[in-house]
Amino acid sequence: MRKLKVGMIGGGGGFFGKVHHRAISLDATREVVAGALHQDPALCEKFAGEWGVAGYPDYQAMIADWKAGNLELDYVTIVTPNFLHAEQAVACLEAGLPVMCEKPMCYTLKEATDLKALAKRKKNVPFALSHTYTGHQMMMLARELIKQGKIGDIRKIETYYNQGWLATLLEKEGNQQASWRTNPKMSGISGCGGDIGTHALINALWTTGLGLKKVSAKLTALKGRALDDDFNVFGELSNGATLVLTATQIAIGHKNDNGFRIYGSKGSIEWAQEQAEELHFLDGATRVTYYQNSFVAETPDIVKSYGRIPSGHHEDFLEALGNLHTSLERKIRVIKGEKDVPPAYDHPGIDEGVLGMKFLTAAVNSSKKKGAWTAV
Amino acid sequence: MRKLKVGMIGGGGGFFGKVHHRAISLDATREVVAGALHQDPALCEKFAGEWGVAGYPDYQAMIADWKAGNLELDYVTIVTPNFLHAEQAVACLEAGLPVMCEKPMCYTLKEATDLKALAKRKKNVPFALSHTYTGHQMMMLARELIKQGKIGDIRKIETYYNQGWLATLLEKEGNQQASWRTNPKMSGISGCGGDIGTHALINALWTTGLGLKKVSAKLTALKGRALDDDFNVFGELSNGATLVLTATQIAIGHKNDNGFRIYGSKGSIEWAQEQAEELHFLDGATRVTYYQNSFVAETPDIVKSYGRIPSGHHEDFLEALGNLHTSLERKIRVIKGEKDVPPAYDHPGIDEGVLGMKFLTAAVNSSKKKGAWTAV
Amino acid sequence: MRKLKVGMIGGGGGFFGKVHHRAISLDATREVVAGALHQDPALCEKFAGEWGVAGYPDYQAMIADWKAGNLELDYVTIVTPNFLHAEQAVACLEAGLPVMCEKPMCYTLKEATDLKALAKRKKNVPFALSHTYTGHQMMMLARELIKQGKIGDIRKIETYYNQGWLATLLEKEGNQQASWRTNPKMSGISGCGGDIGTHALINALWTTGLGLKKVSAKLTALKGRALDDDFNVFGELSNGATLVLTATQIAIGHKNDNGFRIYGSKGSIEWAQEQAEELHFLDGATRVTYYQNSFVAETPDIVKSYGRIPSGHHEDFLEALGNLHTSLERKIRVIKGEKDVPPAYDHPGIDEGVLGMKFLTAAVNSSKKKGAWTAV
Amino acid sequence: MRKLKVGMIGGGGGFFGKVHHRAISLDATREVVAGALHQDPALCEKFAGEWGVAGYPDYQAMIADWKAGNLELDYVTIVTPNFLHAEQAVACLEAGLPVMCEKPMCYTLKEATDLKALAKRKKNVPFALSHTYTGHQMMMLARELIKQGKIGDIRKIETYYNQGWLATLLEKEGNQQASWRTNPKMSGISGCGGDIGTHALINALWTTGLGLKKVSAKLTALKGRALDDDFNVFGELSNGATLVLTATQIAIGHKNDNGFRIYGSKGSIEWAQEQAEELHFLDGATRVTYYQNSFVAETPDIVKSYGRIPSGHHEDFLEALGNLHTSLERKIRVIKGEKDVPPAYDHPGIDEGVLGMKFLTAAVNSSKKKGAWTAV
Repeated sequence: MRKLKVGMIGGGGGFFGKVHHRAISLDATREVVAGALHQDPALCEKFAGEWGVAGYPDYQAMIADWKAGNLELDYVTIVTPNFLHAEQAVACLEAGLPVMCEKPMCYTLKEATDLKALAKRKKNVPFALSHTYTGHQMMMLARELIKQGKIGDIRKIETYYNQGWLATLLEKEGNQQASWRTNPKMSGISGCGGDIGTHALINALWTTGLGLKKVSAKLTALKGRALDDDFNVFGELSNGATLVLTATQIAIGHKNDNGFRIYGSKGSIEWAQEQAEELHFLDGATRVTYYQNSFVAETPDIVKSYGRIPSGHHEDFLEALGNLHTSLERKIRVIKGEKDVPPAYDHPGIDEGVLGMKFLTAAVNSSKKKGAWTAV
Repeated sequence: MRKLKVGMIGGGGGFFGKVHHRAISLDATREVVAGALHQDPALCEKFAGEWGVAGYPDYQAMIADWKAGNLELDYVTIVTPNFLHAEQAVACLEAGLPVMCEKPMCYTLKEATDLKALAKRKKNVPFALSHTYTGHQMMMLARELIKQGKIGDIRKIETYYNQGWLATLLEKEGNQQASWRTNPKMSGISGCGGDIGTHALINALWTTGLGLKKVSAKLTALKGRALDDDFNVFGELSNGATLVLTATQIAIGHKNDNGFRIYGSKGSIEWAQEQAEELHFLDGATRVTYYQNSFVAETPDIVKSYGRIPSGHHEDFLEALGNLHTSLERKIRVIKGEKDVPPAYDHPGIDEGVLGMKFLTAAVNSSKKKGAWTAV
Repeated sequence: MRKLKVGMIGGGGGFFGKVHHRAISLDATREVVAGALHQDPALCEKFAGEWGVAGYPDYQAMIADWKAGNLELDYVTIVTPNFLHAEQAVACLEAGLPVMCEKPMCYTLKEATDLKALAKRKKNVPFALSHTYTGHQMMMLARELIKQGKIGDIRKIETYYNQGWLATLLEKEGNQQASWRTNPKMSGISGCGGDIGTHALINALWTTGLGLKKVSAKLTALKGRALDDDFNVFGELSNGATLVLTATQIAIGHKNDNGFRIYGSKGSIEWAQEQAEELHFLDGATRVTYYQNSFVAETPDIVKSYGRIPSGHHEDFLEALGNLHTSLERKIRVIKGEKDVPPAYDHPGIDEGVLGMKFLTAAVNSSKKKGAWTAV
Repeated sequence: MRKLKVGMIGGGGGFFGKVHHRAISLDATREVVAGALHQDPALCEKFAGEWGVAGYPDYQAMIADWKAGNLELDYVTIVTPNFLHAEQAVACLEAGLPVMCEKPMCYTLKEATDLKALAKRKKNVPFALSHTYTGHQMMMLARELIKQGKIGDIRKIETYYNQGWLATLLEKEGNQQASWRTNPKMSGISGCGGDIGTHALINALWTTGLGLKKVSAKLTALKGRALDDDFNVFGELSNGATLVLTATQIAIGHKNDNGFRIYGSKGSIEWAQEQAEELHFLDGATRVTYYQNSFVAETPDIVKSYGRIPSGHHEDFLEALGNLHTSLERKIRVIKGEKDVPPAYDHPGIDEGVLGMKFLTAAVNSSKKKGAWTAV
């Protein structure tokens, strides 16, 4: 089986490029072969050498080489700061190159809706948004159990993402990760909300299939910080249920404490990213714990098809991100006419990207207007 | 050592009278000797017989007998439905009888402030409000660690209380516990908020010593229910920090899932009632778990003085409620002139009772006004 | 309802007398009224004053006063060091007084078998052995589930009890608890085995109904200590299944880390004392967690009858010990002709006491003979 | 940076070849390029096609091609059933090809000692034994903390590995994994011991640096099974401390429940594979939890150099196996003269392979001789 060839835009300097590199390589069915890895051509050259891939001074050159037949590419992964995503994603889709794009999808809502219009025209060019956590098998299983009616009608969702790494003003100390995340020019209108609040939102909505009607928000930041680092939102879901979304980056000791509790009329489903291999179903009397890759009757074959190792040996973050790449890979292989490709599980894409932008816009506006309920 | 003699008002029918009975008896230094256990004289007689105590048709008769010297009483425990507390507490304090009162303290805010004025005049008549969870040793330790500056300035508090037992309309099926709790005439303006939301609030404020300035609330109820069963509040604390308080009675599978996470500038402190014997301190690198009755250097002697059994053998709910009775007992013994009485640890009282009423009033008003921020 | 009157032998100096005092008092249906609390008459007097009970210089005097009709007693609790149990238990049974006896039941196997012969003659005088952990509701439920065939045939049991408090030679520093436990004259042939190893054994055998055929043991002690502080045993159970029993007092950081894992042909049942309110059933695909006092269909009414507070508010060590007293209380009330007494759940007694002694004898002998398999 | 080229022997049929394939690919610095993936040439061809690597009908042909300069290879991974390891490892070492070999290292002790003699002569040809769990960063940290004296002198080790998948006679139902593992001709003298017991052993000895003097064992198997499926061993360690090793494959519901508790004179260190990202240090008063990739002061730089993603996003089984490949990779790069290669952390090799064989031999013999203590 031929390995899919991947080009990367950005990723040379930050840690997340390397994370995608690993998630792409992990299954030995995909490989990064080229990259416009950094805006500084010398650094791009350096990183390309380290990675052992063809380096390009800019993404336009990489796409041009592919069009000219000088470079094999099956898709492109975008790992640049938020304000660059839109332009790059547009260029790829226009050229006919499938995209795995980091979230948040765009810098402004306008960019997001424009991108959506473009994607509609480019139906045969798959676009995936790397909301990594949706790639966890247990989140797939949660989604399937909810579809099967296991918890009845959803009445309330608590979804959260707690971190502590911005409890001091790291951006004043030259920390690169902190600097761009707290800089409105690079991150957009929200810091914590854009970085991790959207994960909490998409995790919940993607799993339940519900929409979000309106929000009331309370956003704050440490003195001296330009964007929110604490982001709390009440919401009304499309079925009238209540959403409580809390995200923070000042909860010292919390790493990536991200998860949800979904309460229905017949039971509850709960998942926490830091024990991603477990899923809990609660009825009035007991708690039932399901395990990743275990022989659970309710698990559909399509979810099982993402398993790599036996139960008790966890597949975790890299594997979940790998699963999103696998879904994209499966779609691309089918489009290319390969046989016996297992079906691709759903993954977040343009719609979730637009939703994330609308959500951030509404939350920021609500907080400015003292928590006034604001339509999404 | 003479056992303190306790009279009880209410408690014969519901389960919580028996809970207080056990918490009082547990240490073998206190005993219930009399009770106006039920409004129905026949039932009162029946329960008094079962408990082996002197039965009184009404609390006035019990107090009168005590005044007449026919009955020994050291204090009274009030376990009636909310709307009766104020009148009974007033009668006890007026008579000079110390009180352990169930929460919420009163039915209306006016009753609460009147009671506060009375208590001010009756300084030598101790009054305790049975916010049971504050009796846990690990909550005492959390409070002491925070006083010692262990987590620095507090920036955010998440406090919660999740239950699932009202996920169906039990009050329509004759369930007594559900009936009075969802009945505005007996419970007041809030169901879930009054029953468990105030626990979440007082746990957090008592532990940190902070006040609450204003709130923005989202309260809902299942269709067909008269009072809220889902109660979510954002707040601004007296030091400007953020409060996120969530309480619910429709989270199926949750029993008494109550606790807090307190985030400061130097670390975090976290406690959960369902593992009440543990307290967690988090810094950026590690999580340190303290155990009840363990030899932790930071534990003050006054906290240790509440321990009953060696670490690893938990003291839990009955013991925590017992601790509140112990604090009241110690105060009473000192007032009576006994020697070598260990010092009583602080416990919630009138001020917390007033605060709880103000909080409920503000939260209910805010929710009615679409989450408008409302002063407490 | 009249409270049962309890006399105590021993308990004035150590901490465990007070523990029984609380477990007896907890339900407000029993009370300690008299005690031969200490061998030193002055100390006995002092403790009796503190407890507010009638003090006796020796247990014979207490029994004599009861026989003479000067003292009301329904049963006696024995909390003396191991080497005194037999004589005192014999005296009570001979007099017709029911007994709650601390474990290990006796100092020698001979004493145990003699006591058994006596008890056979005194059928109407209940005798309970306070293997506290068997009083936990979740252990009752485990026993019932196994009886119902939930896990099929038992193939292996791992039972354990880890403590760390004897990791230093506390007995050389004047620690009273350490001194008698490491002293062969007071504790008998085994230290760790007698103190906590028998808990691990009885927990497992009582829950499964299995017997023990033979053992191979490895016992060790820190240099300078007279009795074992680390106690490891392989066993063959009556059905041929394997027992692995590990107990230690040198595992620093472990408090009362005691529990079992029972593996059957259809599933596993697991319980841990430090989370005593949970019971786990595992099949190949999921783990099902049952909660104390929760509405679990498999829970028989007799087990439910021991519940005191709603699920999520744990009943723990004192309540479990209280449950053993409740079982004894129920038996006594029935014997006394009271009506409507709920049925008493089974509890360890003479047979478990004899078994414990046989087990210790076999384990100590096996360890001396380099682990040779030794009949129990 | 050039990717290292890896050849694989075996692995085409079982699941573990693919696991190594992923662990090799994960870091995008190594790639499988060739494989003698199956003894059946047609199947080998098929798998080679699927993997996209050069297929060889036998490993000799692959080595020959490399020697002839027709194939680039930096090292070889051996993933065949146990009885084939020795011959293949010998061929690689003789040819000068570094080896990553699956465990147990050999089929007989003689093979193992012969291989050791060969390896001694081939000092510049690295040999790694894939005891995957030793690749976890938290096990590296445990080893470093113990070296630093954090827990003092080691007094007892409990090490365990519980599985449940062989609770039925799967080998009679055509399950391939079960068939070779329960077949003495393919697995050697021990089933459970060889498959997972040696993991429990090496985890403990590698982490502490202790040796094993003698053992007393109790091995059993379900009726109808040829090799042990329950494997329990007491041991005496080189410093006189006690080892309790329990491994089983009939504990229904247990997946890969593998870990250790190491008790020293100053504290305890505990790790469990199913929460591999945490390491616990216990002193008498508290439990301190360390997190993978967290900023823990005690973590040496060499351990940090294995980290891939931020704390809270776990690196788990594939990453741990990847770490062993990374250690081998680093050694090879240094030998090849590359600059700036980070130092390789220690990993199990020939000595651990020999030790594993000696241990199995002694345990099987002891069990046959009714648990007689047997020198290792």
